[in-house]
Amino acid sequence: MNRIYLDNAATTQVDKEVLKAMEPYFIDVFGNPSSLHSFGQEASKAVEFAREKIARFLNCSAQEIIFTSGATEANNLAILGTVFANGYPGKKIHIITSAIEHPAVLETCEYLEKNGVEVDYIKPDNSGVINLNDIKNKIKNNTKLISIMYANNEIGSIQPIEEIGELVRKVNAKRQEDPSPAKAGSGQAGKIIFHTDATQATNYLNMDVEKLGVDLLSFSGHKIYGPKGIGVLFVKKGIKIRKIQHGGHHENNLRPGTLNTPGIVGLAKAVELIDIRNNINIENLCNYTLELIQERIKNIKLNGSLENRLPNNLNINIIGVEGEALLLGLDMEGIAVSTGSACSSNSLKASHVLSAIGVSAEESHGALRITLGKNNTRAEIEYFVEKLEKIVKKFRDMAPS
Amino acid sequence: MNRIYLDNAATTQVDKEVLKAMEPYFIDVFGNPSSLHSFGQEASKAVEFAREKIARFLNCSAQEIIFTSGATEANNLAILGTVFANGYPGKKIHIITSAIEHPAVLETCEYLEKNGVEVDYIKPDNSGVINLNDIKNKIKNNTKLISIMYANNEIGSIQPIEEIGELVRKVNAKRQEDPSPAKAGSGQAGKIIFHTDATQATNYLNMDVEKLGVDLLSFSGHKIYGPKGIGVLFVKKGIKIRKIQHGGHHENNLRPGTLNTPGIVGLAKAVELIDIRNNINIENLCNYTLELIQERIKNIKLNGSLENRLPNNLNINIIGVEGEALLLGLDMEGIAVSTGSACSSNSLKASHVLSAIGVSAEESHGALRITLGKNNTRAEIEYFVEKLEKIVKKFRDMAPS
Repeated sequence: MNRIYLDNAATTQVDKEVLKAMEPYFIDVFGNPSSLHSFGQEASKAVEFAREKIARFLNCSAQEIIFTSGATEANNLAILGTVFANGYPGKKIHIITSAIEHPAVLETCEYLEKNGVEVDYIKPDNSGVINLNDIKNKIKNNTKLISIMYANNEIGSIQPIEEIGELVRKVNAKRQEDPSPAKAGSGQAGKIIFHTDATQATNYLNMDVEKLGVDLLSFSGHKIYGPKGIGVLFVKKGIKIRKIQHGGHHENNLRPGTLNTPGIVGLAKAVELIDIRNNINIENLCNYTLELIQERIKNIKLNGSLENRLPNNLNINIIGVEGEALLLGLDMEGIAVSTGSACSSNSLKASHVLSAIGVSAEESHGALRITLGKNNTRAEIEYFVEKLEKIVKKFRDMAPS
Repeated sequence: MNRIYLDNAATTQVDKEVLKAMEPYFIDVFGNPSSLHSFGQEASKAVEFAREKIARFLNCSAQEIIFTSGATEANNLAILGTVFANGYPGKKIHIITSAIEHPAVLETCEYLEKNGVEVDYIKPDNSGVINLNDIKNKIKNNTKLISIMYANNEIGSIQPIEEIGELVRKVNAKRQEDPSPAKAGSGQAGKIIFHTDATQATNYLNMDVEKLGVDLLSFSGHKIYGPKGIGVLFVKKGIKIRKIQHGGHHENNLRPGTLNTPGIVGLAKAVELIDIRNNINIENLCNYTLELIQERIKNIKLNGSLENRLPNNLNINIIGVEGEALLLGLDMEGIAVSTGSACSSNSLKASHVLSAIGVSAEESHGALRITLGKNNTRAEIEYFVEKLEKIVKKFRDMAPS
């Protein structure tokens, strides 16, 4: 058996078609897309063609697509960019986010909080889902930004983005009807801007920004069988944000730097290859994985619920066994899983996501994240569970009783 | 004759060996370098191997290399990062830079200037070179950062980085001997940090950071026959800067985001292929280009001087003919040159570089930048000058006399 990769939430294998699409843009069409000559214009054409493709995927216009170096930068640009465009640091701004965001959102908000921005971190229920009313109750006159991830990277819980979009629309309509508080200097912050980090959702969920009602949406190439080092921020027409880096006036003057043509072309190809009609296959395989685990290993617990969950995500606690020990044991058998996000793999801190859904710090060290990809097979899953069973047995036998 | 590319300051063609080095890291070794399993650790090994290579190139240690999405981000991180780490916005900080920096430095400084930072923009002499004394005279008690590019992107002028490094060392030694003004609350800003944007210099000049005496140094992949979307900031051990984006704690907690393995590997290979002993060839070809142009076209002027100039750069004014008209005329013949930097190709503003060396706005619209690369041949140059001569003649014949 070849090695088995079950860590698709960390990154994905680049699709052969994606690499094939990228290859001409290193040596043949290598011009700087900002150059006026034919070398540049060919590259620019490829970039704009890619932009159109991605716009179709998001149901937006090409002018609303900003290319970044990845989802981390897109999230920073969304949040810092909104705050910078709205009177920070002078004006008192309020942000609502969730307690289970990716560090790129969470730490950006924490940074702003340390620098005078008010932030509310909404906790999800025990299944990892944010309650709409909890957001509603936190909205204040000076709420300027709501940033809620589309799907969680550790437990795969899907957030009610469309409903939050609808809520934001209503609040904004009301603010527009009755702008008097703003005039009266109450500090009402104009429209609320709604951002979602859709990095984990891109492969599986409806990405129609119109339907979702979002103003800003981030995602990256390398989670969708595309290249690393490239991402997108959708910025709805009329939404004002400010750049966070300075230089050339690329990307509607929101993101300076030479456009990464191969990365952009690869990202567009990866988007083109997404077909959520295949979700059912991966969901079946994921259910099969859970069934097998439950059948073969006693005393396990699923973190989060099976409802409102990405079809490729399992996060389980195998009681009494350290997740990291399992990870390393499986790795010796050529099987890749993770204990949480790759971004915090060097940190000993308990997962903030598991903590937010009520898993104790002690228990959360036993968590194992299994995230399937489009290339996984039933045979791989069977092999994986067989090895997992043996490793768990070994550790449990070793433990003092 | 194939098309001829003479715009290597805008971007370069990826070297075949670079692409070959990158290819395994899309599909075969695709793991997230932050993942603990073997898929991740293989990628991490490649990243660290690349980091070592680049460190050898810069004569620094691997821990001093921070990977970014390009030179623009590296420059932003250097400048904003220094200011953020030194009490901005509360503390009054003074920066010295030059009037001919790339927009990634210049606009970052201008942004800070609008937000309370004092900035002095040193003008070069008419050859495009900054005078050391002009910097010396501007140093104040609260000078915290000096950011001077290694070589200019439009006219190729080389700045006295080693001498500035020596100056900074002396000032810092003096500050350390006599720290009393700081104690007395005079606002002395500790050590001065010295940054250079070496993006255009990387192929041609000595990049030994020890010899140069720099604390921070930026460069990018795509100017050295490497990939777009990847760059480096060298951060000398002990120099404190702050991250400008938030998220995972990658890269000594200075730059979050999944590491772009193929980009990093490609950048390292590109660095490995640099051999400044080849400078003489490109310099000879560049001199030949100028001789041919001078021989065949009357009434031209070289912007900047031939001394202290990158060996691959020519920037000439062909009096009475618009640079953009020439660019488009040459493009129709399959020859790529530029009028200035690609970053400002959509702007009608006169070049800030030419303006700083005393070229009038009117004259600067006639500038043509020719930047050779390692693959150019004498036959290409002869063909180019032949076409240039014809086009200039056509335009001059058409002009009202």
